[in-house]
Formats: sequence, structure tokens, C-alpha cells
Amino acid sequence: MASSTSYNPPCAACKFLRRKCILGCVFSPHFPPEEALRFANVHKVFGASNVAKLLNELLPHQRAAAASSLAYEAEARVRDPVHGCTGEISFLQRQVDRLQRELDAANAVLVWFACNDVVSLEAAGRSNVGLGGGGGRFYQIGGLPISYDVPWNDIYNCHGGGMDGSN
Amino acid sequence: MASSTSYNPPCAACKFLRRKCILGCVFSPHFPPEEALRFANVHKVFGASNVAKLLNELLPHQRAAAASSLAYEAEARVRDPVHGCTGEISFLQRQVDRLQRELDAANAVLVWFACNDVVSLEAAGRSNVGLGGGGGRFYQIGGLPISYDVPWNDIYNCHGGGMDGSN
Repeated sequence: MASSTSYNPPCAACKFLRRKCILGCVFSPHFPPEEALRFANVHKVFGASNVAKLLNELLPHQRAAAASSLAYEAEARVRDPVHGCTGEISFLQRQVDRLQRELDAANAVLVWFACNDVVSLEAAGRSNVGLGGGGGRFYQIGGLPISYDVPWNDIYNCHGGGMDGSN
Repeated sequence: MASSTSYNPPCAACKFLRRKCILGCVFSPHFPPEEALRFANVHKVFGASNVAKLLNELLPHQRAAAASSLAYEAEARVRDPVHGCTGEISFLQRQVDRLQRELDAANAVLVWFACNDVVSLEAAGRSNVGLGGGGGRFYQIGGLPISYDVPWNDIYNCHGGGMDGSN
């Protein structure tokens, strides 16, 4: 016969702190019993009382995200006690800078190609490419393999004026 | 007449904690008296005893960087109690993803331009551009406005083989 009472194990926080896990425990929804290490890291870095205070000051629907971000920061600090998750921020900032430089360089080469093609197409007098037609200010390429916001329409002007002579 | 004794004000931590700032105080080099808010944030988020323990476990030359990263994280958590500095990590990761997509798109357009130019230049039989000469495997553009590692040499092959027919 099944027992009429059920046993709820204490959450990871209450188990770690060796206290009774009461109904409404602020840690319980975010540090279930099987996530002992998650709470241990958070406790080591922030301290249980600081975490409880922070969670209690938030609205209930904000607490899961806060517990996740605290656990993420704590794990990063345990892994790298000097930099914590600011190491990741520095890494990502360097990545953003590098990608931005590469994108600027790629766009500059695209402008070079575009200007070069406009000149050669103008010289050849080809008629199958729209030059400034349909209200477009500049050279529109038909049949590009992908949709891409070409940079030279806004920031460059190969001839010092629009193809339609508007400026 | 000048006094023969000098007064060293307590560091921000000792002043905040209302204790005597002794010689060798672990906070003193990193939380000078004028940075009261910096320590207040760190104390609020991590707790003074956790910070002291963390700093004491590091080598002396690592402590300045650790104090800076703790202050950075604490300030971010005070500003955004839900996400702390993981909000910045998410923002930077989205920026990296966006820039990578834009760079991939720009490179794809560059490949299109390059392939298109090779075909038109071949058809025109121009002689002033090196096509696979000098051991180069593919179309090399002379006079590009900037130095840029063109992607198509490595990852694309517009004609299914090198310009010199090597593969």
C-alpha cells in the first residue's frame, strides 16, 4: 500500500545550509535538490544571505532570471577568480571590434568593386543593368546571390554625385 | 611648524565597516578613501568577507584586476538587479551574431563580384590584370583600396577549378 504522506527533499540551499526547507523558501524554486553545486558556487561568491535579500527584493516573475544570472556569474568567478565573467565581456568586446573592422574592410572592397563595375559598365554602354532607374540613387545590381544592404548607397559616392546627377 | 605625524585616512572598506585600517589591509590598495560607492556596491553584492577571502586567496599581483572585476560586476548588479553583467554578455553575443551574419553576407557579395569580374574580364580578354599568373591560383585584383583577406581564394571556387586549371 502506498504511503499517504510524501517526502519533499530540501532544496539545494537549505540542504547546504542545514536548515529546514519551509514552504515559500525563496531558494527552493531556483535551486532544486539536484543542483547542489549551483548553489554552492552562488553561496561561495555572493553569500546565501545576499542572494536571499536580492531575490526577495525582486518581483516573483523576475527571480528565475536573477537566480540564473547569479549562478552564471558565480560559476565564472569560480572558474576564473581574477576576472569572473568580465573575462567573457572582454573577449566578446574584442570579437565585436574585430568583426566590425572586417566588415568595414569588406564593405570598402565592395565599394571598390561597385565603383569599378559602374565605370566599366558605363564605358561598355550595357543596357541590361539599371543605372539610377526607378528613383534609385545609384547603381543597383540585379541577380545578387543574397539579400544584402549594400553600404555604398548611403555612405559612399564613387563619382562625387548620384548616377542620375541629382547631387 | 609642520606636524611630524601624518594622518592616513582609512580605506573606503574600513571606513564603511567602521574599523581601523591596519597596515596590510587587503582592501586598502584597491578601495581608496575617495571610492566609497565602489566599495559599497561590492559589499552589497558580494559581502566584504567574501571579497576579502577571494582577494587573500589570490597572488598579490592579481588582486588589482580581481578588485576591478568585482567592482564592475557589483555596479552592473546594482544597475540591473535581475541580469547583472550577464545582460551585457547577452547584448555583446547578439552583436557578435549580427556582425558575423553581415560579414558572411558581405563576403558572399564579394564572391559574386569577383566571379562576375573574372568572367567579364576573361571575355574582354584584357591583359592588364593577372589571371592566375606568378603561381597564384586565382584572380588577383591589383590596386584594391585596402588590404583585405579576400574570402574566395580559400572557400569558394567560382569556376569549379583554379584559373590556371590546376584543380
